[in-house]
Amino acid sequence: MTKAFSFRLLATDGKARRGEIAMPRGSVRTPAFMPVGTGGTVKAMYMDQVRAAGSDIILGNTYHLMLRPGAERVARLGGLHEFARWPRPILTDSGGFQVMSLAALRKVTETGVTFRSHIDGSAHEMSPERSIEIQGLLDSDIQMQLDECVALPAGEQEIERAMELSLRWAERCKAAFGNQPGKAMFGIVQGGDVARLRLRSAEVLGAMDLKGYAVGGLAVGEPQATMLEMLDVTCPALPAGKPRYLMGVGTPDDILQSVARGIDMFDCVMPTRAGRHGLAYTRRGKVNLKNARHADDPRPLDEESDCPAARDYSRAYLHHLVRSGESLAGMLLTWNNIAYYQSLMQSIRDAIEAGEFEARAAGIQEGWKRGDLPAL
Amino acid sequence: MTKAFSFRLLATDGKARRGEIAMPRGSVRTPAFMPVGTGGTVKAMYMDQVRAAGSDIILGNTYHLMLRPGAERVARLGGLHEFARWPRPILTDSGGFQVMSLAALRKVTETGVTFRSHIDGSAHEMSPERSIEIQGLLDSDIQMQLDECVALPAGEQEIERAMELSLRWAERCKAAFGNQPGKAMFGIVQGGDVARLRLRSAEVLGAMDLKGYAVGGLAVGEPQATMLEMLDVTCPALPAGKPRYLMGVGTPDDILQSVARGIDMFDCVMPTRAGRHGLAYTRRGKVNLKNARHADDPRPLDEESDCPAARDYSRAYLHHLVRSGESLAGMLLTWNNIAYYQSLMQSIRDAIEAGEFEARAAGIQEGWKRGDLPAL
Repeated sequence: MTKAFSFRLLATDGKARRGEIAMPRGSVRTPAFMPVGTGGTVKAMYMDQVRAAGSDIILGNTYHLMLRPGAERVARLGGLHEFARWPRPILTDSGGFQVMSLAALRKVTETGVTFRSHIDGSAHEMSPERSIEIQGLLDSDIQMQLDECVALPAGEQEIERAMELSLRWAERCKAAFGNQPGKAMFGIVQGGDVARLRLRSAEVLGAMDLKGYAVGGLAVGEPQATMLEMLDVTCPALPAGKPRYLMGVGTPDDILQSVARGIDMFDCVMPTRAGRHGLAYTRRGKVNLKNARHADDPRPLDEESDCPAARDYSRAYLHHLVRSGESLAGMLLTWNNIAYYQSLMQSIRDAIEAGEFEARAAGIQEGWKRGDLPAL
Repeated sequence: MTKAFSFRLLATDGKARRGEIAMPRGSVRTPAFMPVGTGGTVKAMYMDQVRAAGSDIILGNTYHLMLRPGAERVARLGGLHEFARWPRPILTDSGGFQVMSLAALRKVTETGVTFRSHIDGSAHEMSPERSIEIQGLLDSDIQMQLDECVALPAGEQEIERAMELSLRWAERCKAAFGNQPGKAMFGIVQGGDVARLRLRSAEVLGAMDLKGYAVGGLAVGEPQATMLEMLDVTCPALPAGKPRYLMGVGTPDDILQSVARGIDMFDCVMPTRAGRHGLAYTRRGKVNLKNARHADDPRPLDEESDCPAARDYSRAYLHHLVRSGESLAGMLLTWNNIAYYQSLMQSIRDAIEAGEFEARAAGIQEGWKRGDLPAL
């Protein structure tokens, strides 16, 4: 078993990278998509389905878990892997992003953030040191620095202030994390939509020699073109030998475009959230099962899929479940969506290995554009 | 493959009966519990879990399915088995009970019932003939006569009127069902809590030589003792060579007590509904996972269960999922509950075969009475 966290580049194709992260709890094939397991569960799925769909790693949300069931409790119960029955690698965010988006009465100072829980109003403090402590209690394999993420659009001065604060917090997180060979703490590049600030953030973090780097503060309201422009600026400024994680992204097309710019890791609630709202991701684009056109359609979502949810259930049945508000609707569509995302990642990895990333990516985009099967 | 519907008694122990219903789509070991698949789905479960838990047959609700997705639509899609991906036997109720409990503006005449949908207010008619027609469109294996079920307590005159009407409707359903060797149409004994009326109903229905008999209009508000008293009166009046189905019952103890009186089949929403509300049925009685005592408990619900939901997940995790309103809570607890009900049925069948029903039933009740594990 691998004792130390490591990252190997196996192949490149243009800027696209095919790699592998090795960790004691398992390896992660990159480019990788991490299903979001907010509160210790990938909503409406069994962990064996998450794994069988091709997931090597899942994400846990520090903010949610610290509030419920509580980090100390998870630690007493043997850590998040044991608690949630996912023995493979877990990445946890720092909690910062969700403090900013969910908590009440939040206040950011040099020290950290104070806020009140959105669940019960209880008061909490989150410093860089406490964030790393919590992630340690959860026993997560890849931990994230605490940062301040500014919603776009925002003024340059505000973006710069938050970015500089995040750099100082990165140093404190690095110190708090210390030397843990089997695990990693990633820094987060901030700087909003300002190229100069992104460069500065990437360079300062790069000099810290962290085990991996995230790009944060994107997909927070800006157009896709702005996001991709920031990746064009940021990726080349990051150390080539370290994994690069684009936080909270995104649509299947966002993923293709970001891999093309050198991103290795992704997480997003889209496939799980959309699944609970009647939307299926497929190789023919998004399919809205609420639509009446499916009511009499005996065809499956995708007869060629390996995923039973996509292959074995009629659209008519899925439509009926969605319209009736049945739990099984969310169960099947979430399963389909995670399986589709993971099959997309597998196609991407195969394409890079074959040196055909650009052509295959175009083919995948073509499939989305052609759209769903004609109605019967 | 069996071509004709048949029922064989394999063993008796006191009044308890061990039997087997054979049908073209599979056989049903009795005493049997039928999970309720209201709208073409046993809520929050995959059909392969329902089967693996030991279910030989499930129940579909005619009222729900006729309104959504519609019986003619299900027929066009290949019938309910194909639609819901359950290839084994299905029993459908007549729709009458739920018209009475769910629909608006319902009106009962000699002809049948008119009502408005609780979903969209649309107007519908349900006659004995239409109920059988709908159940035929669904292609169900065991169909039920349309009856009128009176909530208890009720006046004797009202109970008698509804019972006599139900007898006349049974004749019309029998005629509408005709000769279908591979399927069955069951009559329903009514008569409320009045022994004289139960006897009259059982005798008239018995003379019709139907393929099976249900006892309806119980577990509708009366004490358990009243229900059991009615079974004491009714069961001996029913033909010994036909299966007996106690509709909508019940708790694990209701099932034990009713098997002791000669009942062969059961259905109930309790295990599925309770699962979605944080309640687990176990051999140690009901366990409320919402309770704070489970928050730090690493033990599973039942380490000796064959069901992964009972055996592999900590109470602390289940508690967390229930408190957080996660879909996985309902998925796991429903799975546990159906598995527990089916393991109870298996114990009952084994006990009757061994001629030890009374002793083993007492042992099972003892287990419930001892209660859950002491808190840690």
